[in-house]
Amino acid sequence: MRYDKKNFPVIRSREHLETGPVILVTSSQSGRSNVMTMGWHTMMQFSPALVGFYLWEGNRSHEAVRQTRQCVINIPTADIVEKVITVGNMHADGADKLKTAGLTAIASSQVEAPQIAECYASFECRLFEDRLVEDYSFFVWEIVRAWVNPITAPRTLHYRGQGKFMIAGEEVDYAERFQPENL
Amino acid sequence: MRYDKKNFPVIRSREHLETGPVILVTSSQSGRSNVMTMGWHTMMQFSPALVGFYLWEGNRSHEAVRQTRQCVINIPTADIVEKVITVGNMHADGADKLKTAGLTAIASSQVEAPQIAECYASFECRLFEDRLVEDYSFFVWEIVRAWVNPITAPRTLHYRGQGKFMIAGEEVDYAERFQPENL
Repeated sequence: MRYDKKNFPVIRSREHLETGPVILVTSSQSGRSNVMTMGWHTMMQFSPALVGFYLWEGNRSHEAVRQTRQCVINIPTADIVEKVITVGNMHADGADKLKTAGLTAIASSQVEAPQIAECYASFECRLFEDRLVEDYSFFVWEIVRAWVNPITAPRTLHYRGQGKFMIAGEEVDYAERFQPENL
Repeated sequence: MRYDKKNFPVIRSREHLETGPVILVTSSQSGRSNVMTMGWHTMMQFSPALVGFYLWEGNRSHEAVRQTRQCVINIPTADIVEKVITVGNMHADGADKLKTAGLTAIASSQVEAPQIAECYASFECRLFEDRLVEDYSFFVWEIVRAWVNPITAPRTLHYRGQGKFMIAGEEVDYAERFQPENL
């Protein structure tokens, strides 16, 4: 199933990334796209919208994002968990990972890396800070454009190690209990 | 309700932090403890077990963790969501936040900062890398000791902004689909 995504304010990116979902990171180098699974990421700033993630140097995507300084963070939901697992357990080795996993690449607006049509949200990123790449393989990105389908309570996947995932559950609204400045 | 926690291998810390739960970060300075809510954190390495988080410099805890270079990351569950919200919407101002929020501080083994008894997991941390503190308020910690109560499928809280939380849902086990080296 493909999600029609609408332009979304990058300053609100946290609403979709802070919950800690498994993400699919796409990159493109020399005309070839790649995709990988990732769980080690965090928001770092509202504006500019910064997100940091760890990308092991042994991963094929590491070189691509380091050279191109671009990527897209896509958020999958439980309906495509099988595809997520395929991506996470496959080596690039010349194969088109996206196609093999049954995922559809669609053009992004600001970067070469593609969005994934089967993901409800995609965040186009440009490398902002590489100070920790050498020692920690940690990249800090600026989200330059966000695309989100406004489904309610997306059933995102959250990795618990050892092949187990937690699926996002119910949402509860405590806005009334918050100080206005904290909303 | 207080959770009896057992010593847990720090190399497996990701099993509890990677899902992206809201955490309660405690610190201690000059004999006074403090607690704050936080959602912007990520695992960064298996061994040493590194976790990074963003802590705004306007937050009272920022000074405490920067000076003492110690903290404890505690993970609350949905049963204490009200206490979490109290902590997140309260200023320190001399008040004992932990007590006001109805949380119980218990001694840690490796650091001065306390564990929270009502949290099912606590990770004692020492500052490992402060290179990004000045420009990004981003701290990289080494988890030196982990304490976890072995409840299954903990109903952790995940913040979606604007006062809304997602509560962790069901767990699914796909270990059979994983390459052995990825487990």
